[in-house]
Amino acid sequence: MAEKFNVDDIATFKDDKMTVNITHDSPNFRQLLFCFKPGQELPVHSHDVDSEIIMAIMDGEGIVIEEENEVPVRKGDILIGQVSVPHGIVAKTEMKVLVTITPPL
Amino acid sequence: MAEKFNVDDIATFKDDKMTVNITHDSPNFRQLLFCFKPGQELPVHSHDVDSEIIMAIMDGEGIVIEEENEVPVRKGDILIGQVSVPHGIVAKTEMKVLVTITPPL
Repeated sequence: MAEKFNVDDIATFKDDKMTVNITHDSPNFRQLLFCFKPGQELPVHSHDVDSEIIMAIMDGEGIVIEEENEVPVRKGDILIGQVSVPHGIVAKTEMKVLVTITPPL
Repeated sequence: MAEKFNVDDIATFKDDKMTVNITHDSPNFRQLLFCFKPGQELPVHSHDVDSEIIMAIMDGEGIVIEEENEVPVRKGDILIGQVSVPHGIVAKTEMKVLVTITPPL
């Protein structure tokens, strides 16, 4: 395929905060790999556009926050929603989350 | 999120051929979970549209065929390409592949 990577190979972790790697950015979608150490978080936020977001939990476990809901998530979970709905992530263990936004922001 | 599933929970395998579960279908993207037993395959094919395809190898290992190229793939690999380019999959072990096509076919 035009692009190929392994999430374990490109995952990077920092002591002070989660990391973000942009893995793809085209007119069709933007994709990012978020890596968290235990306790790190993606603060709750939203984007005022009509795009959909896919969160693929590639490793670890944590909580996905959507509005007032706290949803426990674990490796293999796929979550799909609207980027206009406030959402965030809190890692319980080391976590790798592949996020795809389509159409891109 | 609006939708949540775990690939391990919805994975189904059949003795005679690979299985396909449609996990999402919206104006933005179509998503399918392909499950293979060892030796099963998705025959090489293409679609004459301008969409992009993401193959996320959620479990197992095998070969992704793109035109004349045979690309070994394993758990954690993400492959991104054009659906107009002939592509297929051959499973070496039991395999779960989450495929996202955007925009949908």
